[in-house]
Amino acid sequence: MTDITYPTTNAGPGEDASAVATPAPAAVDDAREGVRGIALAAKQASRALATATRATKDAALHAMADALVAEAARIIDANGADLARGRENGMKESLLDRLALDEGRIAGIADALRELAALPDPVGEIVRGSTLPNGLRLRQVRVPMGVVGMIYEARPNVTVDAAGLALKSGNAVVLRGGSAAASSNEVIVAVLGEALVRQGLPRELVQSIDAYGRAGAVELMRARGLVDVLVPRGGADLIRTVVTESLVPVIETGVGNCHVFVDASADVAQAVPIVLNSKTQRTGVCNAAETLLVHRDVAPTFLPAVLEELRRRDVTIHGDDAVAANVPEGLRFEQATETDWETEYLSLDLAVRVVDSLDEALEHIRRYSSGHTEVICTRDTRSVQRFTTELDSAAIIVNASSRFTDGGQFGLGAEIGISTQKLHARGPMGLAELTTTTWIVEGDGQIRE
Amino acid sequence: MTDITYPTTNAGPGEDASAVATPAPAAVDDAREGVRGIALAAKQASRALATATRATKDAALHAMADALVAEAARIIDANGADLARGRENGMKESLLDRLALDEGRIAGIADALRELAALPDPVGEIVRGSTLPNGLRLRQVRVPMGVVGMIYEARPNVTVDAAGLALKSGNAVVLRGGSAAASSNEVIVAVLGEALVRQGLPRELVQSIDAYGRAGAVELMRARGLVDVLVPRGGADLIRTVVTESLVPVIETGVGNCHVFVDASADVAQAVPIVLNSKTQRTGVCNAAETLLVHRDVAPTFLPAVLEELRRRDVTIHGDDAVAANVPEGLRFEQATETDWETEYLSLDLAVRVVDSLDEALEHIRRYSSGHTEVICTRDTRSVQRFTTELDSAAIIVNASSRFTDGGQFGLGAEIGISTQKLHARGPMGLAELTTTTWIVEGDGQIRE
Repeated sequence: MTDITYPTTNAGPGEDASAVATPAPAAVDDAREGVRGIALAAKQASRALATATRATKDAALHAMADALVAEAARIIDANGADLARGRENGMKESLLDRLALDEGRIAGIADALRELAALPDPVGEIVRGSTLPNGLRLRQVRVPMGVVGMIYEARPNVTVDAAGLALKSGNAVVLRGGSAAASSNEVIVAVLGEALVRQGLPRELVQSIDAYGRAGAVELMRARGLVDVLVPRGGADLIRTVVTESLVPVIETGVGNCHVFVDASADVAQAVPIVLNSKTQRTGVCNAAETLLVHRDVAPTFLPAVLEELRRRDVTIHGDDAVAANVPEGLRFEQATETDWETEYLSLDLAVRVVDSLDEALEHIRRYSSGHTEVICTRDTRSVQRFTTELDSAAIIVNASSRFTDGGQFGLGAEIGISTQKLHARGPMGLAELTTTTWIVEGDGQIRE
Repeated sequence: MTDITYPTTNAGPGEDASAVATPAPAAVDDAREGVRGIALAAKQASRALATATRATKDAALHAMADALVAEAARIIDANGADLARGRENGMKESLLDRLALDEGRIAGIADALRELAALPDPVGEIVRGSTLPNGLRLRQVRVPMGVVGMIYEARPNVTVDAAGLALKSGNAVVLRGGSAAASSNEVIVAVLGEALVRQGLPRELVQSIDAYGRAGAVELMRARGLVDVLVPRGGADLIRTVVTESLVPVIETGVGNCHVFVDASADVAQAVPIVLNSKTQRTGVCNAAETLLVHRDVAPTFLPAVLEELRRRDVTIHGDDAVAANVPEGLRFEQATETDWETEYLSLDLAVRVVDSLDEALEHIRRYSSGHTEVICTRDTRSVQRFTTELDSAAIIVNASSRFTDGGQFGLGAEIGISTQKLHARGPMGLAELTTTTWIVEGDGQIRE
């Protein structure tokens, strides 16, 4: 999967978080009726998809991809309007870049739909099954959720991505994108809908509630019973709001305050590249490292080596006193505060602390981690054992980069996001996480004694 | 599993729902501090259990069982106080019976803990794993949630049941029982805690927040981040309140408006016992049938046969006009209204409707079902195909009783409840549903290119 297709769900600081902000009271009634109508239509449409064959769904994905390419000019026009509005409103260059579409990017987005078509269908998989002593034939079968809601920010590629993931997993999708991408999304949803209709599928499989503004997002979060699961994709603020406000079950994704701990027994020559890769290979992503913990016994050899390399890569260090003593000429250094241990920088910043023991490292991680990914560099089997069993995070990595916590890297195919919650899905999520299961029991007159 | 040990989670009508009612404002501050303290202590204690071996956990379960039996007199004393208070407050006989403990019932409750000890440990199970192309060794391992919250009603057996299920799955538990069983629960929690301490485990693995009253229940529902999952066990009102109010992720259990559809091609001699068993084998349970739908083509032979048998079993029929025409002498019959289609009677009442087609049956079930269990009696393969794929319920049963939707019947061992939600668990839930997973990745210096 290419990065443009399945970006990690964590946006950079300053990302547009308007998708879920408080609505004006006047708009609420309209929004309630509108969103509930859309969700009901989605539920109805989802029935057509629940029993659709894989061939039907894959054909629809290809048709959607072809339509995006064929209608690229129309999409780029609408995107131009969003960009112009963004510039007027003083949107930052980095955000304008996330928002911008051109023919190349649209081709990439379309290719991602074709890649989805090539993946196995999660629906219909028999998770487990047996014949019971009384002859009942029991099987647990993977089925679509029904209606998936997505609330996301100003990246129009997510509109297509979400529609494709939902369709492949047999679900209808109700989309709420950031207002900054409203024109682009409107055209994209229309183009995808036209493609579905040409395939004999209901247009209501892919719908947007952007017309209802912020009040619409609130209604989507309240549509329990109509919307089966809500997936927020975006920055920490957006995710926090959705998790707190939603009555619809949420799959929480993305916040990653990830740690690398370099143990006393670490191989320094191996640990330095792991730290560099975890921090600098890509910074604006949830599986990048944000805090480095160094065992006091290895600090004298490890710290000078890693700090020199971090300096070369323009990383700013937020360190404690023991780190300060090792700062090389030209390294940007700030004294670390409590805030640094808590911060997901998503930038070329790294908090660094020297600890006296594995216990102190575990305690630090337990206290400050967001439960995403923790790395240990060690050659000590007991440290491996304790680190892998005593922490409470979605992924624990031994002697490798934190950047491997990724659906593509794990071989799961398409990635919906990286879950930091414990229910339903934890860590990188594939298509199967957009499904649920039904127990099917077949008998021949069995009754309970 | 005996019924006293793992009752279905759906209480009868009139069950005490005080566990989650609105608290007095004055009590809220105290409760916040108290409940958060208890949840933090539970989180701390859960760490001891997360790395405990199965042998340690099973020994603790046996010790808890032995302690309950040894302290039966103390428990029965406290239970007597609850019963006396209940009688003073005019509690119904059926509720008093649910509340009452004697030596026999305590022995049964203790035996259930021993049965739990005999079950396999879900923790440590490798769900999937592989070696990635770059040599990283990847495995997804089942781990405890951490802290499980349980909110339930006036059945002291659930206190023990919840403590045992949580312990076996490696979790600490925070309990909020109904006020009607407060004295019994206080002593039971104390006895279980003493047994844990004697085994070298922290008492804080099993704690009650009953002392904080209704305000405590509210705080438990707000303890996101401290409590990992909340399992409400009780009547529909309690479950609805918890689902709506809780910021902690909830596993929703129990409401069962279950249907039996007798298709045109049904074997009448087989369908009659299936209906009787589904309705009358046990009435106060979530997997009992509440509505019978009969295809018009089979009604002339099927309806007289089934109504006569239902009359013999004192079932009251709430039927439409086509049913009314077939009512035998002595059958209690009421004209069905919209309310009947919506009602989970949990009693010897059955709504009956004649439908013109499979489509009409599917439409009825989609509209009124709570998504628990639906049964079809048919000999038509196309009806089986459509019924098993076009409905949206946790269990679909072909030619057998609805009463089979049960963890024990499905061979899952202990049953936590029957989930009617789609996230995390659907249908009968075993111990594995009280766990989550961690991805463990082991490498030798791998970094991402």
